[in-house]
Amino acid sequence: MRKYSIDTCLRVRLRHQPGQLAKLATVIAEHQALMGEIKIVSIGEGDTVRDVDVETIDDEHTNAIVEAIKSLDGVELLAVSDKVFERHRGGKIRSTSRVEVRQVVDLRYIYTPGVARVARAIERDPNLAWELTALGQSVGIFTNGSRVLGLGNIGPLASLPVMEGKAVIYDRFAGLSATPILIDTLDADEFIETVIRVSKGFAGIHLEDIRLPECFRIENELKRRLDKPVMHDDQHGTAIVALAAVLNACKLTGVDPSRSRMGQIGLGAAGSAIARLGLAFGMAEVLVTDVSPAAVASLEAEGARGVDLQTLMAEADIVVATTGKPGLITPAMIRKNQVVFSLSNPDPEIAPEAALAAGAAFAGDGRTINNALAYPGLFKGALKVRTRTFTPEMFIDAARVIADHAQTGQVVPSPFDEGVHDAVCEAVVKRAREQGLAGSAKL
Amino acid sequence: MRKYSIDTCLRVRLRHQPGQLAKLATVIAEHQALMGEIKIVSIGEGDTVRDVDVETIDDEHTNAIVEAIKSLDGVELLAVSDKVFERHRGGKIRSTSRVEVRQVVDLRYIYTPGVARVARAIERDPNLAWELTALGQSVGIFTNGSRVLGLGNIGPLASLPVMEGKAVIYDRFAGLSATPILIDTLDADEFIETVIRVSKGFAGIHLEDIRLPECFRIENELKRRLDKPVMHDDQHGTAIVALAAVLNACKLTGVDPSRSRMGQIGLGAAGSAIARLGLAFGMAEVLVTDVSPAAVASLEAEGARGVDLQTLMAEADIVVATTGKPGLITPAMIRKNQVVFSLSNPDPEIAPEAALAAGAAFAGDGRTINNALAYPGLFKGALKVRTRTFTPEMFIDAARVIADHAQTGQVVPSPFDEGVHDAVCEAVVKRAREQGLAGSAKL
Repeated sequence: MRKYSIDTCLRVRLRHQPGQLAKLATVIAEHQALMGEIKIVSIGEGDTVRDVDVETIDDEHTNAIVEAIKSLDGVELLAVSDKVFERHRGGKIRSTSRVEVRQVVDLRYIYTPGVARVARAIERDPNLAWELTALGQSVGIFTNGSRVLGLGNIGPLASLPVMEGKAVIYDRFAGLSATPILIDTLDADEFIETVIRVSKGFAGIHLEDIRLPECFRIENELKRRLDKPVMHDDQHGTAIVALAAVLNACKLTGVDPSRSRMGQIGLGAAGSAIARLGLAFGMAEVLVTDVSPAAVASLEAEGARGVDLQTLMAEADIVVATTGKPGLITPAMIRKNQVVFSLSNPDPEIAPEAALAAGAAFAGDGRTINNALAYPGLFKGALKVRTRTFTPEMFIDAARVIADHAQTGQVVPSPFDEGVHDAVCEAVVKRAREQGLAGSAKL
Repeated sequence: MRKYSIDTCLRVRLRHQPGQLAKLATVIAEHQALMGEIKIVSIGEGDTVRDVDVETIDDEHTNAIVEAIKSLDGVELLAVSDKVFERHRGGKIRSTSRVEVRQVVDLRYIYTPGVARVARAIERDPNLAWELTALGQSVGIFTNGSRVLGLGNIGPLASLPVMEGKAVIYDRFAGLSATPILIDTLDADEFIETVIRVSKGFAGIHLEDIRLPECFRIENELKRRLDKPVMHDDQHGTAIVALAAVLNACKLTGVDPSRSRMGQIGLGAAGSAIARLGLAFGMAEVLVTDVSPAAVASLEAEGARGVDLQTLMAEADIVVATTGKPGLITPAMIRKNQVVFSLSNPDPEIAPEAALAAGAAFAGDGRTINNALAYPGLFKGALKVRTRTFTPEMFIDAARVIADHAQTGQVVPSPFDEGVHDAVCEAVVKRAREQGLAGSAKL
């Protein structure tokens, strides 16, 4: 099936006469495009201006529809705009003032001379920066744009819209102030040094869209050298939401995860983290397979068992695949009553329908996993309790509360379930206290 | 004269009875403190709660007043708060979303999958980032906190309140999105490398509070290596506002600046830039003096004449002093009808009253100079016209329009004169076009 990936808004002037909108709708239908919202912009004496949203497959598809509409009698095409590009115009985030500045005395309070006393107070006691600056709510989103979505190494500049999207989600779901920091290097050491040199401006360090294998060393080294929470979202954010989905799929199918064998196919950033979280969770056994023997060896050293794909599919009760290889799992490999998550986007290792038809008890694909469920609450909790690090136990607790918030029959909740972000936050806070990590962060 | 530098708010409960407020005011007066606003917080049956603002000299002074009020009959002191610290609580800036995120379809537009098309478009044509990201309005404020206000090398963390103040002013006066970037190094090369590595995330590079002599090399090297506007505000922001003040002082006293000798005393960041701007402006001659022979030699190479302090004071028609040495200029040194700006804060080289009494035609001190008049409009213009660099001609034009906006009898306008920021912006735009620099910036 071809995917509808372009959302276009067509602004049209239609004559006041029965059948004009139908004529337009028919042309769109004849081109196999989908119609979305239809809004009235203005009503004139002899005509109406409407915005008609259309979903198409690609630009060629859109152009064909535009040409067909132009030739319609009684329909005037006024404008064609890409709804996604329109939303991006001017950027998606902005650094704004939290204080009123109306008169000269306000400047004396928030700038010189008043600010000098605040600066000196923080010099004497750096912990005051938690209260007297924006640091207490601030996360830096660090990337070099070397592995962005399914696009690969597109570089830092082109990755900025993605980072701004992450920052919007931080604002919307956790009330945190997040700033994209684009680091223009592919060298892991340079990346690490740069993050460390600018890290004083952030209480949380979010790593994003960094390619393999550098992402592992970058995260580990930053965790070692900084006394503030560091998290590579492509690893742990994905793993947490995947574990939440697995837990709910188990519940739906009557499987006990702690007595189950989990099989992880593909040990990239997400896959490695999912396998590790499975081990930390206490799955009965974690099987792993990957084209890279080094990746397998690394997980074996942590307690997983390296196997080939056939063995994994034959032995695992729960299968998670993150390989980027569409069709890797054939229906013949599916074991009866298996729980199968084939997460690669846009095309999964096996379509959920095919897995179910082959006997799987549950099947899900990448649309299941939305990282926006995890990272906002995780960092909100980490900054609230001032932990110097995230722990696997926090990740597991986060997965459990995310799972708990799913609607009946679903494996994960919507990120618009506001309760889920606060629940993740509180899970991190509680666990940090239990682990003696509350207040351990340093600015 | 001792300076009143602490603004305190005293929350008091006063009995409903004539003379209670007078009693409080008398105690404050007896302690030689100043009273500010008095607000009613709540009115009860037998008493009223008020917030009384008091200006004191230091904490000891405040404490003495607090103790005296505690012993008053009929007056209950409920709370004492520092008005400056209160304004800083929670920080002064925040990264916020510019787009609405209300339902799942919104996430599809601003995040995956829609954002992938925007990222790919920018990968193909980096110039699209001007429109489709926040870059077109974004300035990074880079500092290592090595020379902050009069406080010296307090480090990056303690400098953050100052940088947040700068960012608030960008938002308030120019609608720009400014982000403090704290760089944790005193090494100029490391500083330069770090700025370059993260520079893709900003269209403008504002350097702030970097000590001598590194600030010169850092600015020059970044200007050379980046195709986007770079400006060290402590140099050029101060110089522009100083030139504006000089131009108006000349007008008030009937002096023609282009036929005048300007004398610059002190060649630190601000002083060097003022002398350079005087040369670029076309003062008849620029005399300079400094304790550092290297600093003098550097300005001599650019056309200034190095002299000793006595010669400078004897020959200059316009004197600007930025030495940090209170009392350096004695009344005996003042020449009749001289224009004298002794700018060091908090204590000037000569008090304006003393300079006037000694025969100066005009005298001003550091309170004259407010950088908030220059940098917001400068960067707004530079980003609007997409110039890859600022030029001395832009700085001179900015000084002229700032001067033009001053009220009659004043040498500079208030930064709350909104017109001044747009005027500076347009001056930069116009000059960039004339100099063929419009559109020369690269992201």
